[in-house]
Amino acid sequence: MSFQSLQREAFQLNQAIYEHGLALLTWGNASLHDRDRGLIAIKPSGVSAARLKEEDIVVLSIDDGRTLAGALRPSSDTPTHVYLYRAFAGVGAIIHTHSTHATAWAQAGQAIPCFGTTHADHFNGAVPVTRPMRPDEIRHDYEENTGRVIAECFATHALDAGQMPGVLVHGHGPFAWGEDGRHALDNAIALEEIARLAWYTRAINPAASPIAPYLLEKHFTRKHGPAAYYGQATGGARDS
Amino acid sequence: MSFQSLQREAFQLNQAIYEHGLALLTWGNASLHDRDRGLIAIKPSGVSAARLKEEDIVVLSIDDGRTLAGALRPSSDTPTHVYLYRAFAGVGAIIHTHSTHATAWAQAGQAIPCFGTTHADHFNGAVPVTRPMRPDEIRHDYEENTGRVIAECFATHALDAGQMPGVLVHGHGPFAWGEDGRHALDNAIALEEIARLAWYTRAINPAASPIAPYLLEKHFTRKHGPAAYYGQATGGARDS
Amino acid sequence: MSFQSLQREAFQLNQAIYEHGLALLTWGNASLHDRDRGLIAIKPSGVSAARLKEEDIVVLSIDDGRTLAGALRPSSDTPTHVYLYRAFAGVGAIIHTHSTHATAWAQAGQAIPCFGTTHADHFNGAVPVTRPMRPDEIRHDYEENTGRVIAECFATHALDAGQMPGVLVHGHGPFAWGEDGRHALDNAIALEEIARLAWYTRAINPAASPIAPYLLEKHFTRKHGPAAYYGQATGGARDS
Amino acid sequence: MSFQSLQREAFQLNQAIYEHGLALLTWGNASLHDRDRGLIAIKPSGVSAARLKEEDIVVLSIDDGRTLAGALRPSSDTPTHVYLYRAFAGVGAIIHTHSTHATAWAQAGQAIPCFGTTHADHFNGAVPVTRPMRPDEIRHDYEENTGRVIAECFATHALDAGQMPGVLVHGHGPFAWGEDGRHALDNAIALEEIARLAWYTRAINPAASPIAPYLLEKHFTRKHGPAAYYGQATGGARDS
Repeated sequence: MSFQSLQREAFQLNQAIYEHGLALLTWGNASLHDRDRGLIAIKPSGVSAARLKEEDIVVLSIDDGRTLAGALRPSSDTPTHVYLYRAFAGVGAIIHTHSTHATAWAQAGQAIPCFGTTHADHFNGAVPVTRPMRPDEIRHDYEENTGRVIAECFATHALDAGQMPGVLVHGHGPFAWGEDGRHALDNAIALEEIARLAWYTRAINPAASPIAPYLLEKHFTRKHGPAAYYGQATGGARDS
Repeated sequence: MSFQSLQREAFQLNQAIYEHGLALLTWGNASLHDRDRGLIAIKPSGVSAARLKEEDIVVLSIDDGRTLAGALRPSSDTPTHVYLYRAFAGVGAIIHTHSTHATAWAQAGQAIPCFGTTHADHFNGAVPVTRPMRPDEIRHDYEENTGRVIAECFATHALDAGQMPGVLVHGHGPFAWGEDGRHALDNAIALEEIARLAWYTRAINPAASPIAPYLLEKHFTRKHGPAAYYGQATGGARDS
Repeated sequence: MSFQSLQREAFQLNQAIYEHGLALLTWGNASLHDRDRGLIAIKPSGVSAARLKEEDIVVLSIDDGRTLAGALRPSSDTPTHVYLYRAFAGVGAIIHTHSTHATAWAQAGQAIPCFGTTHADHFNGAVPVTRPMRPDEIRHDYEENTGRVIAECFATHALDAGQMPGVLVHGHGPFAWGEDGRHALDNAIALEEIARLAWYTRAINPAASPIAPYLLEKHFTRKHGPAAYYGQATGGARDS
Repeated sequence: MSFQSLQREAFQLNQAIYEHGLALLTWGNASLHDRDRGLIAIKPSGVSAARLKEEDIVVLSIDDGRTLAGALRPSSDTPTHVYLYRAFAGVGAIIHTHSTHATAWAQAGQAIPCFGTTHADHFNGAVPVTRPMRPDEIRHDYEENTGRVIAECFATHALDAGQMPGVLVHGHGPFAWGEDGRHALDNAIALEEIARLAWYTRAINPAASPIAPYLLEKHFTRKHGPAAYYGQATGGARDS
């Protein structure tokens, strides 16, 4: 079984985090999940984009966590990615960044209100923030528990990971995802920009209110789902 | 009838949106209107700047909407562009962006006050924001209705699209235009920068007031109209 | 009499405005003054940096305003530059920009307080803002009167243009200068950055106070004047 | 004794300040300390990155301050660097910048609260700000006294320079350091970004509180010290 094309794609996705300015130093990581083969490809821990090589990408079995390719230790955030791939059916790529404005909202402990159609084109409602983690959740299995509180947050708010492809981890930063690498990247880029827009919106008008439900619905459904008419083919998000 | 030069110019104008950082992903679009030939050239829907090719530009007849060149579906915002070309005589190019600060003002639901001469050099007064659209306007013919509320806004405030070459669509983002592609682009760039300046101005001094009417008039008329003396020839905006 | 080296240097100074992001479109201009020969070299009106050529730089006689080189009309702001060269002995270069944060303070109508040593390294105290111009000053000889209110501002506040190499024109934007092109450029760059710093400083701490007079004096005099010890030679600003 | 490799590394570190946008003009400087040989390599005073050459780096003896290599005068901030190398065992590189957001916090006279894990990954608690310096400390031996108030600040707050690799000098700007050039640079970059994040965090939520002590401890210790598991080898910060 060859992992080269999976490593190449994961390599490019990790590079893209830095090319788009979504993280500094070694603060970001991206993974891909090949559901047919039960594989996860993820960045090695603590390696900067400048020094990362294609063959450094670690390929793991999602079933038993065994390393199948790559000589380095996988990202310390790997258990978070694994938890999310198990919790969220249909997700094929996850990107964790420390992009400035999304991280600021995470640090502020506030969900990002849907103030406009830029937001509605990507996220079907306010982007949620997880609850603060408890001391025991932090001291033991911290990274896996990070995935657990994200999934709990989505369950609590009855959110669908397909319609809300991102989250803010309280006091930490954003995760974004998608059915494949390109969609995950688009959502990570969009999440940072709508976080930035939302900050300026409220700064200009502290009484700004989220857009009306029918405008939100219009924008989300014209790009996603069976009635989508944005892009070049029917079928929704695939052609956004 | 050859459309190649029209497609080339529209292609370059669409690329310029991204080169100047006025939109991310596929969020911007630009069109040209050849009034003599009754043609509109516009970006195809959902195609990013990086993947856009000159021959992808869609050429339409403004009379019956028929596609005359280009194999792809035109921008979903096409009906907005068409509406504006019909409503605003003399407009030869329209650019829609999601540029950060202009979009933030649109999301805040506030017109951009004319706080300085940078603003007055391009826009003869506050840049208006449209009223929020009604549910029925959003559910049916949304994009055409977007053009309609812009035109309504200009009628309500007795604004001249030649002296106010831009607008904020409530909860959405900015449109800018001009007699040709270069002027539309200059106005889209200026609109983002004056939105940014206006935010910082009010943040530094919440009591900041718009510039005096005679200073606004001086700056607008030294660049535009029969008495213009800025630039290299007589005749106003053409030589700005 | 050859003007080529003067035109080349003025050309490079005008390009530097854009390379350093201090203005967009055609909003900035720079000039040099050769006091020995009574010459001013300045950007032509309304020409963007991308299209500007070395031979486009207009060379004028400061005595009678006659054009000695260059086929285009000089910047519409030329009378402001001329006024300042006459009012401020020792100034050899002037740069007018619309740099974002300095312009925002100008639009806010507030002087930039000296909140730190970055400021004190370049400007010996708060950077002043001119009074708003009167209707008659705007309607007639507007550009010359712009120079006049700057000089008036310096007289009113007993400021020395050698120790305060910049100003904010109310509702308009910044001018910076220096004994030569390099110093004027350094001061224009510094003016934008200290304006940006001052905004963030007050935003973080609305009660922030200017630095103590002895710290201001220390930093200004270690870079400028007879006791300077910053840089590679004695003599002050020349080696900053 | 050859100084070439030390000069080369110091040269690259000084260039990196500007490549990463942490200072404009000549406002930043970096030094290395070779503790075995008792050497300090530092930028010459008032030379911009664009004009700096490898052989311009000044090599000094830390014992008697004698210049051993380099024809130019060392940075005027040299006595600050020397003081810190003597006060803080284990520090091998120091970087002084005027990076915008860290400088704004320094000008605001406030420590940077630890609002998130990005901060906790690099700094074990709030980044402190020194007390304002007294007139006599400024008038005489200003640069050495700058080092002295930093060391005093660390003693007062019982801070360990190994766990808190940076400080804000009141009304001035940030210093960051590390065991070697790469760590000092990472910390200077991180200090600017956490300053930026902290500003946005408080702006979005004025009631934002620092992260819980157990989350801070978790993040700092997973990257630093004997229990570190981030990166590719045991031993903590060396492999971050």
